Amino acid sequence: MRGQMISASAAASFLERSDKFVILTHASPDGDTLGSAYALADALCALNKRVFVVCPDKIPEKFGYLIKEYEAFEPETVVAVDIADEKLLGSLYDRYSGRAALCIDHHGSNTKYAEMLYLEADAAAACECIYNVINELGTKITPYMASCLYTGIATDTGCFKFSNTTPRSHRYAAELIEKGADYGEINRVMFEVKSRGRIAMERKVLENIEFYYGGRCAVITVTRNMIKETGCPLGDLDGVTAMSRQIEGVQIGVTIKEKPDGKYKVSLRTFEPYNAADICAIFGGGGHIRAAGCEFSCDIESAKRQLLSAIGEVLR
Amino acid sequence: MRGQMISASAAASFLERSDKFVILTHASPDGDTLGSAYALADALCALNKRVFVVCPDKIPEKFGYLIKEYEAFEPETVVAVDIADEKLLGSLYDRYSGRAALCIDHHGSNTKYAEMLYLEADAAAACECIYNVINELGTKITPYMASCLYTGIATDTGCFKFSNTTPRSHRYAAELIEKGADYGEINRVMFEVKSRGRIAMERKVLENIEFYYGGRCAVITVTRNMIKETGCPLGDLDGVTAMSRQIEGVQIGVTIKEKPDGKYKVSLRTFEPYNAADICAIFGGGGHIRAAGCEFSCDIESAKRQLLSAIGEVLR
Repeated sequence: MRGQMISASAAASFLERSDKFVILTHASPDGDTLGSAYALADALCALNKRVFVVCPDKIPEKFGYLIKEYEAFEPETVVAVDIADEKLLGSLYDRYSGRAALCIDHHGSNTKYAEMLYLEADAAAACECIYNVINELGTKITPYMASCLYTGIATDTGCFKFSNTTPRSHRYAAELIEKGADYGEINRVMFEVKSRGRIAMERKVLENIEFYYGGRCAVITVTRNMIKETGCPLGDLDGVTAMSRQIEGVQIGVTIKEKPDGKYKVSLRTFEPYNAADICAIFGGGGHIRAAGCEFSCDIESAKRQLLSAIGEVLR
Repeated sequence: MRGQMISASAAASFLERSDKFVILTHASPDGDTLGSAYALADALCALNKRVFVVCPDKIPEKFGYLIKEYEAFEPETVVAVDIADEKLLGSLYDRYSGRAALCIDHHGSNTKYAEMLYLEADAAAACECIYNVINELGTKITPYMASCLYTGIATDTGCFKFSNTTPRSHRYAAELIEKGADYGEINRVMFEVKSRGRIAMERKVLENIEFYYGGRCAVITVTRNMIKETGCPLGDLDGVTAMSRQIEGVQIGVTIKEKPDGKYKVSLRTFEPYNAADICAIFGGGGHIRAAGCEFSCDIESAKRQLLSAIGEVLR
């Protein structure tokens, strides 16, 4: 049977009884999946267990301080962290799908692919769940582990900015800082430093940003050519494309991104009372009330014309 | 006698014994001085005292949710919040200098101009001190007060990003969220939304950013003309000029700002092991190891040449 829901303490008991772990992280790794994996790995090592961490993709350099080199071996127990769906195993899918004994996650959408699932859907980060498990294991939280866990909580909450932040996120951050998390430097690397490629992309995007309907709608376009010319790392694109909804007075922010196959992916962000999903549904897309998406196969000018006409109807 | 250091509980006792308050905020008001003043004013109102808040400058629109309209009267007790020095009273200096009975502050540099001073130099924000005082007063923290106090802590810590953030800042944030602080919207307004003028300025700055010494030095220039052309609010300039030190690989970030009198003000930010104060001292300026400043009266090209030559010596 798959998808048995268990508590943090049951997850800890299971980990105590097991040995020879591999910990899986998700594709396009972020601070939460990596922080979760390396903190848990370190805790298991402290209990004299054998462990290694695998990641489907190359780990971005900025996460270097999280990485410990572990030697691979034939694992007995497969643990997945911050992975809502086995599809997110990417290049590791063939090797590990159907093999996870335990999944520790915070996504309400988790597909329950693991035998056991410790899930807290109201946790802002999987690292909050991992922190609970490590506390149940009774392992001492070292400054390194605190830095791993802090990284996950800080990155998944946009440094405590997003509304998924809870009082618990703040309380755990307080404890992790007390336990030695290098939060000043982590925050600098995660939230201050921008790559040269990203700076170049921001410049290009600002040069091309378009305003419509008296500034109530902003359109940002990112073409394959712009990505090539600027050398902007793909992981930095989200921060750039978020700009369309961060401008004063903008009620509907549109980001048009050219995909590798030449189609155009549109992301729509709206503020009250405008419904992003309704607008995207016109073009066969969907999503949430305030954030939705759709796709266009035509040329960009025609796509923009259709979109803006629909947006105009709504804003009128 | 001035500058008697007192505790939060002594400050609360003093406030309980007094009546008819005016609360002073500092010039170029920020989220901390305003959040402090309006939270404290609301707490005193709840104790059936008369109170009003004054600010030396126009309050930026984005702080509108903090403002309650109070009628002015002849006050008996003058309280200053988040004001390290009476000079910061600006346009209120003539009326209120020498009159503060109590100052509540978190600046170690406080000049002790008030009769009594409740100072916590390790508090990230004056709002942390105000929270202590309100708790001593025993007044119920309303959602409005929680939003005021959260605003001060969040803005003075750059949304918990800067290294002045302490475990206490996080714990207070947790409690204030539980007491109803509208943190999602506050964070959006304070840390996400950018004015059209700021966007225009960012674009201009990125168009003109210069890199030297293999990208180890970045120079950003902001002229009077750029400010005029973009309409960038002066309060938004800090965020823009910080860009020179946020670029990957940059070890010395230089911002050159043309002042209203046509002179050039230079801000230098350095990373280890480079000493910003030493470089600025060459030009008659000074400051801290990692952040310093100096001024040039010559034309900008000549100023830049001299600066870059000094920086080149250091980077070599």
